[in-house]
Amino acid sequence: MLARIDSPEDIKNLSQKQIDELSQEIRKTIIDVVGKNGGHLASNLGVVELTIALHRVFNSPQDAIIWDVSHQCYAHKLLTGRYKNFSSLRQKDGISGFTNPNENSADYFISGHASTSISSALGLLVARKLQNDEGKVIAVIGDGALTGGLAFEGLCHAGQLYKNLIVILNDNQMSIDHNDGVISRYLSRLSMSHQYQFFRYSIDKIIDKIPLFSKGIKKFIFRFKRSLKGLFLTNNLFTDLGFEYVGPLDGHDEKSLEIVLQKVKNLNRPVVVHVVTKKGKGYSPAENNPEVFHGVGPFCISDGTVEKFDTLSFTEVFSNCMIDLADKNEKIVGITAAMAKGTGLSAFSRKYPNRFFDVGIAEEHAVTFAGGLAVGGMIPVVCIYSTFIQRSIDQIIHDVTLQNAHVIFMLDRAGAVPSDGVTHQGIFDISLLRPIPKLNILSVASADDLKLCLEWASESKYATVIRYPKLSCPTELPQFKTSVEIGRGILIPCSEIIIENISEVELENRKNKILVVSTGGMFNEVHTAVRATLMDNGYSDIYLLRFIKPIDLDYFWQIVQKYHGVVFVEDGVQIGGISEYLNSFLLENNFTNTKILAFEDKFYEHGSRFDVCKCANLTSQDIASAIKELSAK
Amino acid sequence: MLARIDSPEDIKNLSQKQIDELSQEIRKTIIDVVGKNGGHLASNLGVVELTIALHRVFNSPQDAIIWDVSHQCYAHKLLTGRYKNFSSLRQKDGISGFTNPNENSADYFISGHASTSISSALGLLVARKLQNDEGKVIAVIGDGALTGGLAFEGLCHAGQLYKNLIVILNDNQMSIDHNDGVISRYLSRLSMSHQYQFFRYSIDKIIDKIPLFSKGIKKFIFRFKRSLKGLFLTNNLFTDLGFEYVGPLDGHDEKSLEIVLQKVKNLNRPVVVHVVTKKGKGYSPAENNPEVFHGVGPFCISDGTVEKFDTLSFTEVFSNCMIDLADKNEKIVGITAAMAKGTGLSAFSRKYPNRFFDVGIAEEHAVTFAGGLAVGGMIPVVCIYSTFIQRSIDQIIHDVTLQNAHVIFMLDRAGAVPSDGVTHQGIFDISLLRPIPKLNILSVASADDLKLCLEWASESKYATVIRYPKLSCPTELPQFKTSVEIGRGILIPCSEIIIENISEVELENRKNKILVVSTGGMFNEVHTAVRATLMDNGYSDIYLLRFIKPIDLDYFWQIVQKYHGVVFVEDGVQIGGISEYLNSFLLENNFTNTKILAFEDKFYEHGSRFDVCKCANLTSQDIASAIKELSAK
Repeated sequence: MLARIDSPEDIKNLSQKQIDELSQEIRKTIIDVVGKNGGHLASNLGVVELTIALHRVFNSPQDAIIWDVSHQCYAHKLLTGRYKNFSSLRQKDGISGFTNPNENSADYFISGHASTSISSALGLLVARKLQNDEGKVIAVIGDGALTGGLAFEGLCHAGQLYKNLIVILNDNQMSIDHNDGVISRYLSRLSMSHQYQFFRYSIDKIIDKIPLFSKGIKKFIFRFKRSLKGLFLTNNLFTDLGFEYVGPLDGHDEKSLEIVLQKVKNLNRPVVVHVVTKKGKGYSPAENNPEVFHGVGPFCISDGTVEKFDTLSFTEVFSNCMIDLADKNEKIVGITAAMAKGTGLSAFSRKYPNRFFDVGIAEEHAVTFAGGLAVGGMIPVVCIYSTFIQRSIDQIIHDVTLQNAHVIFMLDRAGAVPSDGVTHQGIFDISLLRPIPKLNILSVASADDLKLCLEWASESKYATVIRYPKLSCPTELPQFKTSVEIGRGILIPCSEIIIENISEVELENRKNKILVVSTGGMFNEVHTAVRATLMDNGYSDIYLLRFIKPIDLDYFWQIVQKYHGVVFVEDGVQIGGISEYLNSFLLENNFTNTKILAFEDKFYEHGSRFDVCKCANLTSQDIASAIKELSAK
Repeated sequence: MLARIDSPEDIKNLSQKQIDELSQEIRKTIIDVVGKNGGHLASNLGVVELTIALHRVFNSPQDAIIWDVSHQCYAHKLLTGRYKNFSSLRQKDGISGFTNPNENSADYFISGHASTSISSALGLLVARKLQNDEGKVIAVIGDGALTGGLAFEGLCHAGQLYKNLIVILNDNQMSIDHNDGVISRYLSRLSMSHQYQFFRYSIDKIIDKIPLFSKGIKKFIFRFKRSLKGLFLTNNLFTDLGFEYVGPLDGHDEKSLEIVLQKVKNLNRPVVVHVVTKKGKGYSPAENNPEVFHGVGPFCISDGTVEKFDTLSFTEVFSNCMIDLADKNEKIVGITAAMAKGTGLSAFSRKYPNRFFDVGIAEEHAVTFAGGLAVGGMIPVVCIYSTFIQRSIDQIIHDVTLQNAHVIFMLDRAGAVPSDGVTHQGIFDISLLRPIPKLNILSVASADDLKLCLEWASESKYATVIRYPKLSCPTELPQFKTSVEIGRGILIPCSEIIIENISEVELENRKNKILVVSTGGMFNEVHTAVRATLMDNGYSDIYLLRFIKPIDLDYFWQIVQKYHGVVFVEDGVQIGGISEYLNSFLLENNFTNTKILAFEDKFYEHGSRFDVCKCANLTSQDIASAIKELSAK
């Protein structure tokens, strides 16, 4: 069926039986493609019926459906003309895993961060009203994203403006992880009011049986129902904020969803439609382990087993180090913003539940709360993805470093991030954090390095950021165990990078030696480049910038002086980055044979890590070419 | 009386009459000092009784009172041993206008940005619980700050953790401006439930009459009261989030406040105490114009007249330009986050109420909402202080520039900010914004310049930031009317800076000409420095960086080449700033006679603009010295 659907118009006349079939086909397609390419599975399986109902009731793209985060947009993509390319999901030049207006006019915003949909949708709606444009605006937001302060700000403003914004609350009791926050509990309590639910449903059924022409009667019953509704829920969180509230509804009962959506479509005020869905619906491995299948790599479809790697990722290494540290130091507490699994903090949370805090999707609060904990004498470790720390810049300045608060930030997924694309690249953190006073910034290159740096950070008196990529850790080298000295990096002579058939004497005699100065996350690419250089009669050593801030410039200068040239490699944007700063320092000292490889001043689309690095001229080949170029100067 | 109060202990045994006298003395002291030094008046007059009640019931500093924003902390300062220095309020090396633990242990956090208190307080409380420390934690937050998403995130987490956090909601129906948001309206509705209020008060009075030993009876009545309370307010916004709710209470009835605070002191769960206060209480000019007396310069105490300046400030110029622009282009809409007066948007709001949006203290939503408006075809102008844009970095990236949304950001109070101090300096914006792709950043130096740049921004297709200082505009020069060309600045030859007794021929013959490359906000200091240089047989021209991003490097290089040296002057931090970037460019081109004057990597305390500039070596004298130094090289 999907092959015949070019636009949502094609599903408007389907029978209920056909809709059921369509749901199954959508599920199968999603499972097949995500099983191969990886992606967001559980959330997408949860909104199949909701998506169908939305597209049958509303007219996309005239009516704008704004998906919060938009990781749950796969069914929406399949129904809006993207079935044929869907197998390219999350691959270079393929379909994005998130909404993107460049792909299709049914998408209004490039999305990927949580809690933005209500604000964006409200802006769009107000713009339409001001221009007398037609078309409804619908924001679909999960209960997880609803915990974000931005969503609350959006709700408040929408309630104030009193325009007909439709907010679909997709309540699956989950954020990225299981959602045990106050909002989630509150929604459960709302859902528990069975009487209410039962009562409303029976009324709905009566209304359906009234023929189309008796509009007046419907109106009467609608009013009657609303007044009855008052008996059961005089006010709730949403009505307090100026919204009408409808729900809770069974999110897998497509027919009922349509009935309610038809009703709210023409309301002349803001409304929250509370829809209860099940994450992973229809695929038991995902239903049973929605955390695992939230964002997942390729997996075996028949049994749901996910590929495991022999080598530990930085995330897993941190996970272990955190427990070691907490064992030794009872002041250590762990904080995450709905990323306990993603950041590896789950193990700690099981061992030290009293010292673990998942604040929900609320990065601002995570950081300010950590500042409070530190002022109170604890040492909070805030675990967050690089791209999401963009949310907390003011909190790091105002609520942490200004307070001299000893907070440790573990920035996972720094640098090039595979598959998730433009909203998830961890390339801004260095430039955004460097201007902040009293903040140490470290980048680590291996498991040993991470362990040492985390220990150092726990003993430091200042706030410290440690960044690392979404990668497996490389094979250890003895240098990674170099003790941490403030401002100093790790020098790895190329003799450590063993090449057959090259004697040490021969190496020593090679001319025009180059130093590759790199952030930790680029070690693999740099290592490969140095190897290639050695094979090609060149010579280059590696200096890893364990410290991005502060920098011991004397030490750096001592090392650099011995080289013919310096290639900087940085997995962050060049503007305001560490390479630009160090390069400037070298120029001041008349050391001019340098080159910077870093992310340019633009956004980077999805693809594998290699694809992303290639777009940024940050592959091992690019690095090797730069070495060669400087060596020849 | 105040002279005899060294600590809150000294007010614990005062009679009710003495308390009334103390209130009056505090008010008088605050009015006197703010009348001379400027400061936050209305909010401080509103919380006098509340502050006294808090300090009589709780034991500061053991019990931690965390003031949100903390602009309302004057009475708190007067009662915690700072009366003697209070006349130095907001002056260099004097008492800060905000809380600061370096001043007194009764202050726990350096504060200045809104909506942080609940999160900070919760962190502190949890730290105490984990360490089995005693001491209550009380967050005092206004209804304005409560609209911030961070406060909501904090409430949700506090409700989840279910610890005895005490939140005092200081409801004065105001944020910085008059608060007409949903939360404020909601609080009004709560306050309107007179029956409830009356009923509770009468119960309270009965409870008070029961002797101390009958704890069981009190408990019973407390339960009884709670069950009765249920009759009137089964649930409200705060109970939905897991809090107990007490209120609304008359915030100027000190005695009643004490009674309730004594009761909530030992509750074993989070509680919101809703206190209604009047901004400006006791000083009629402030009661009648709380917006004017929110943050105010020196004023005449007898009649409340505020000093006016002849020259227009950048804020006033923008205010006029905005209306001109809106007259010509109906796509222009204005957005502010509770800073309509401070940013000069009030005039626009009166002329175009339908195109004006005050979202409350919600900078994140302001920006994301603007992104939505722009995607919908409008041209939103977001008016915000430089220091508060730190809150919206991710929203600018994710919800504006990534969407190619044509949003204009007017950053008022960029650079050195007088009197408000460390939390309000506008020195991070350049470094935080430069790494963001597809964002123009402009700095303007005069009224004409601002007008031209705003017009250009409205015709540009990209998001554009325009920054300017909290200052009067300088006298116009013809060069300020140079038409805007992307990436290019404004060259002001020193011949424009008329000096008697120096002929043009003499000027031309002077050697070692220096170019001062400066952001717009530093024009006054640069102008004075250039003048001094000319008097001292030197020569320097000015190049104003109208564009901070992008930069037309060819054009810049063409200009620079003619000079002997370049002094960079930037009213932002050096790290990641524009000077560092351009300096690096010059070094690459073997132009090495340069010097950067910018804010160092630290926080800057309060003082006059001159004081702040002096701390940063950014006075006209510092600039003149740098010119001399390079000229002599």
